[in-house]
This record gives sequence, C-alpha cells and structure tokens, in this order.
Amino acid sequence: MNKLFDFKILKKDAKTKARVGELRTPHGAIDTPAFIPCGTKASVKSLTPQDLNEIGVQVVLGNTYHLHLRPGEKIVKEFGGLGKFMGWNGPTLTDSGGFQVFSLGVALEQGVAKLLQENDEDLKQKPRLNKITEEGVTFQSHLDGSSHILTPESSISIQETIGADLIVGFDDLESPKYSYAETKKSLERTNRWLLRSKKSHRKSDQLLYGVTHGGRFKDLRIESAKFADKNFDAIALGGAHSSKENMYEVVKWTVGNTDDLKPKHMLGIGEVDDIFNIVSLGVDTFDCVIPTRMGRMGFVFVSPPEGNLLNRFRIDISKEIFAKDKNPLDKNCQCLVCRSFTRGYVHHLFRARELLAYRLASYHNVYFLTDLMKKIREAIIDNSLLQLRNKWSI
Amino acid sequence: MNKLFDFKILKKDAKTKARVGELRTPHGAIDTPAFIPCGTKASVKSLTPQDLNEIGVQVVLGNTYHLHLRPGEKIVKEFGGLGKFMGWNGPTLTDSGGFQVFSLGVALEQGVAKLLQENDEDLKQKPRLNKITEEGVTFQSHLDGSSHILTPESSISIQETIGADLIVGFDDLESPKYSYAETKKSLERTNRWLLRSKKSHRKSDQLLYGVTHGGRFKDLRIESAKFADKNFDAIALGGAHSSKENMYEVVKWTVGNTDDLKPKHMLGIGEVDDIFNIVSLGVDTFDCVIPTRMGRMGFVFVSPPEGNLLNRFRIDISKEIFAKDKNPLDKNCQCLVCRSFTRGYVHHLFRARELLAYRLASYHNVYFLTDLMKKIREAIIDNSLLQLRNKWSI
Repeated sequence: MNKLFDFKILKKDAKTKARVGELRTPHGAIDTPAFIPCGTKASVKSLTPQDLNEIGVQVVLGNTYHLHLRPGEKIVKEFGGLGKFMGWNGPTLTDSGGFQVFSLGVALEQGVAKLLQENDEDLKQKPRLNKITEEGVTFQSHLDGSSHILTPESSISIQETIGADLIVGFDDLESPKYSYAETKKSLERTNRWLLRSKKSHRKSDQLLYGVTHGGRFKDLRIESAKFADKNFDAIALGGAHSSKENMYEVVKWTVGNTDDLKPKHMLGIGEVDDIFNIVSLGVDTFDCVIPTRMGRMGFVFVSPPEGNLLNRFRIDISKEIFAKDKNPLDKNCQCLVCRSFTRGYVHHLFRARELLAYRLASYHNVYFLTDLMKKIREAIIDNSLLQLRNKWSI
Repeated sequence: MNKLFDFKILKKDAKTKARVGELRTPHGAIDTPAFIPCGTKASVKSLTPQDLNEIGVQVVLGNTYHLHLRPGEKIVKEFGGLGKFMGWNGPTLTDSGGFQVFSLGVALEQGVAKLLQENDEDLKQKPRLNKITEEGVTFQSHLDGSSHILTPESSISIQETIGADLIVGFDDLESPKYSYAETKKSLERTNRWLLRSKKSHRKSDQLLYGVTHGGRFKDLRIESAKFADKNFDAIALGGAHSSKENMYEVVKWTVGNTDDLKPKHMLGIGEVDDIFNIVSLGVDTFDCVIPTRMGRMGFVFVSPPEGNLLNRFRIDISKEIFAKDKNPLDKNCQCLVCRSFTRGYVHHLFRARELLAYRLASYHNVYFLTDLMKKIREAIIDNSLLQLRNKWSI
C-alpha cells in the first residue's frame, strides 16, 4: 500500500473474524467496520454534507457510471474532484461502473433484474443495451441514448479524473443464472481486466481495490480471492447480489483466502440483518443504497425489540396505524429527526408526498446504520460483540 | 386587540408609509415588516423548522383547505396544534380556505387560473367543483372526490382546531373578470361572511384578521377597508392577484382607510420587486409560495447588480451557462447554501433531478427574502429606506 494510505487493525474479536481498524486516506481516516452511504450522482439523496457530518458518516460513495454520463468526470475534476464538487471534506469511493453496465445488459436479458433488487426508478437510470467484448462493454446512455464504451483503462481513467480516494478495478459481472463454465469464463475475463486496470492506474493518491467474483462456486471464489490478493493491496467483494443464497459462504471463502491485514470492502450490502454476519466474517466497509432508497419509500429502521429479523428492522411509516403515533421513528434513536418529529408527522408528510418526508426518512436511516456501526466497533473493543449481536437477532 | 396580542409601531419611515413594528403573539413576537413562508401542508417544502430558525424565519403559514383535507384538523390538534405538529416553536398563521375553494371554481370557469399564476402542480391540488351559496362553498376534495362545505363558521372552527396564532375570516373571492356589479355583490357577501366569522370565533389565543376585497374598484376597496377596520383588530388584504394591474393602488386605498395602528397582512405576495412597494405603502406582513415554488423550478434569487427588475431578481440555475460556475448562488448572500455550494453543483443537482436540488434552492430563496426583510427593517430604522430601495430598483 502506498504511503498515502494505511490500514491498521486495532482490535480483533476473540470469537469471530470481526475487527476494528483504521483506514487512513488522503482525506482523513475511516474507523472500520464502517457503512458507506451512496451518493450516486454526487449527492446522498436529499442530504447535505453538513447532515452527513452531523450523522457521523465517514466516507461517501459515488457511481462512476452515473458521474461519467452526468455531469461528466471533467466537470467533477474542474471543481476539484468528487469531494470538493459536492462539498464533502471526507474520504470518497467510486465503484468501477461494471455493475451498472451489467445490470441492464446480461441481467435484463436473463430476467434477473428483480433478483438484483432493482425497482422501476433504477431501471430508468440504467444503460439501454450493452455488448461485452474482450476490450470492454459498449452501452447506450440512459439519458440520451449516446453510445459509450467502458474498458478497464477508461474506467480507471474516469475514476482518476473523478478523484475519489478509494477506487475499484473494472470487472465483468457474472449473472446468478450462469453455469459453472460461464461463471469461470466471466471470472477469467474479470481477472484479465483487473490486470489491465492495475496497469493503467497512475495516481498515487488513490487506493485501487481488486474486485473478487466467482458467483456461487467455491473453487472460483477461492481462485478469485487469491488472484486479487496477489495483485492488490485492498479487496472488494463483488457479485454478492448474485449469490444471495450462499452469500455468507462466499464472504468466508473470499476473506479466508486473502491477507488478513488488507482492508475488505463489500459492494452493495446494507440490510441490518446482513451487517452482523458480514462484519463477523471480516468485512471492514460496505456500501448500500438501502437506507436512502427504503427511506424514500417510507420504510424507516427501528431497533429491537420493535425491529426484528422478520420485519428486517423496518416499519412502513406511511401505514395508517402511525397517523396518531406520537413516538419518534425509533424509540432508541438519538438522531435529529427522532429528537424533533413524531411518527404521526412523518406519516403525514409521506401521505401528502411532501419533499421533507424523503429527507427525514433518509436522514434517520443513514444515522441508524452509522450509529449501529459505531456500536459494533465499540462492542468489538469491549469484547461484547456476541451480546450485541444476540440483542439484534430476535 | 385582546391582551395575548399586541402590535407596536417602533419606527415610521419619514417619506413613505413604511414602518417597523412588533407583533406579539402567544408563540413569540414578529418583527415587521416580515415575509411569511408557506408551509401549506404543515411543511415549508423540503425545509425543517431547524432550517427555518437558522434562516431567521419568524412565522409560518399553513393552508386551512389543505390541512382540513389532510391530515384533518383533528389530527393536527391531537398533536398540539399546527406548530407542535410540525415541530415549529414560533408563531403560525392560517388562511381562511376561501382562496383555494375559489381558485378552481369561478377561476377555472372564467379561465383566470393562469392569471392567478397557477401551474399544473397546483391544479392537481385544487378542489374539483364548487357551488357558492349564501351559506358557504360546496366543493369536492382533490384527494378523494369527497364532498365538503366550507362556511364562515366551519372555516373558523377548522382554524380554531388547527390552532394557529393568526387566523383569517372566511371570504368570497372575486374574479378579476367580474363587472363592478358582480364585484360589489361578492364584497357584500364577504362582509356578511366576515361578520359570521367574527361571531363564531371563540378562542382568545388567536388574532382574527378581517379580509378586504373589492377587486380593482376604488370605492369598493375603500368600503371594504372601512368595514374591516370597523369590525377587526387586524387587516388582511385579499384578492391582490385579482387586481395585478392596479395592485399598488388597491393597497393604498385599503391601508389609507384603516387604522394606522392595526397590523396589515397582504395575502399571496412575494416577488422581490413587489416587496419595496407594498412595504412602502404600509404593509406589515405578507406570505407567498414563490421562494419555495420558484426554487423547485430552478429559479434562485440574486441580488443587485446581477438581479434587477428585468430578471425579477432571479436566475434559472438549470441553464447550461451555470455548469462550470464556481460562484455561490448569490454573490452577496451569507446563507448556508451560498457558503457551502457552487452554482455548478446546484446546476448539476437540478439536471440530475436530485432531491437535494429542491432543498438547496428553497433554502436559499427563503433566506434571501427573510434577509431582505431584515435589511428593510434596518433601513427604516436608519432612515435609509430610499437608498436601499434605489439599490434594488435597477
């Protein structure tokens, strides 16, 4: 790892692979394990960087695909890079764009968009067509139909121009419907693309993550982990959506075959019930649109005992049952929204389709996950992770 | 005026009828002249009460028509009234509902909706049909088609239940297309309804404004002003939209025929170029959706010299010309948005249809008007209103 970056493990949990660490970047250090909210188009939807600071967010993700199309990486650079452009002083991360160009290409073709938990809003924001060759992926912009090609070299070049601290090598996403042979072929392409990504990466103020794939297949996942570990200082777990059924096994195979001392990021994960599992398996950071997307749909996180594995720790605040409820969104939450507003009022805002509804629910949900990660870090340090996990396993 | 309220004039401008005053209410005092942002459905769109405090907003308006239909005044009361329901500690104001039930009845019939500066978004939120009798106005909810009747008695009862500090008597809105005879007939009905409003008003912790009408006709406006002055402790100027051509004359006739010592509110006004005129004519408070509505459309206020009478002190930030602009929205503005973000970033948010766009533009616009009112109050005290006005008359 180059000298602008450093990953220190400060405490290991005795019973699991969970650890508390510190990932130092040119824009500040990240206490891990940490949740990373998505600022897809250079904005964590409805929230300001001031909100994010108040919440305790440490690092924000931007999507390479979206930022490339609008406003374009050159504009982002002209404003000083992703952080400066959006008024965020802390660390930033961009993904490779691989997931987006895949998710309406192969994914749509194979009818797996649903499986990827996509909704209509997403579909409108996805590339219309794509063609995958050894060179890269050709796709049409969802904005104006213009043709684009994303290659390992262009993905890295775009990410260098956007200027996030943490970036990801370009990958070929596997479909969960792929056979073993197809998955193996895809992984081999990913690995060739990762080497091209590494070769084309020039900037020393960015940490390049090698991304792992291999679908649901143990030997491919192990092969992928070893390949990424050999070539990169940081590991990103990709295609987790694709192996929902044995996701935790996939994480175990990957983490178990990479250097313990390297930071591990898991892409696209953020349900409360997944968090304890992936952290216990050794994942250090993860990103997800769930808190903001679910928030905009009226789902707000609640802690135990009201929140449980069955309701996935969320309630639908737009339901009539909350119209007269004078409680805060979550009884145990100390966020600004819970200190200031009732469920009844937020319910009203959703029914009235007031913009403030989406903002308040997003704020609470991002706070909720950020605060949960803080509790998890404290529990690891206190040797009480198991107790905390039991509390959240009802 | 009952003892829970008090209006003191602290300073009169030497050359105009402008004055600095203080309107005391059970929820705090309002320094006048003051702009009152609209929280139509118990939310100033996209902004929190914390934002409003930070901006310096003193009082918030809620719309009786909207709150009656959703969530219903009983729910608002159950949460402790309008302010408590929305988490706002300061004074509140509700209108009579007369404008809303009029604006798709007679207004649509006569093709004057455009003239009332309505847009599609508004039209969707308006009652579908109405029938006016001496008793009141029958209309169908824009939400579910259910039938409702609004009378002087029910308007006051709803406003008492909603519990704002400042409330308005129920009025019959005149169309700008009405003849003299029709306008006179409408005014006579308004006056009968005002007396019924006054008679049915019971709560001592609310100040009831008598609303004036009379369209564009001098003698009717004078008659209306004298009537309101005789019967009420506070005066609201109604139907200003209806007399856009001679609006300032209408204000002059009204203010000139009411007691100087009474507070004067003007309904539905808030363009920067109107503000100096109405304040100079003796208006103390006014409300308008313009800063938030225009903000959501991408129009942000700018001060002189960039802002002028021709561009109505606003720029369309969604225009391509602002894509690379590193300036704040307004170069002279000290609001949180102008201190934190560039025009280029806000431009991007509008192009990308990010929720944050509407929030940032609304925040800036409400701040801009609130700050302008502060400057106007200071100028009246300093005897420099004319200089300030000249600066804003380019």
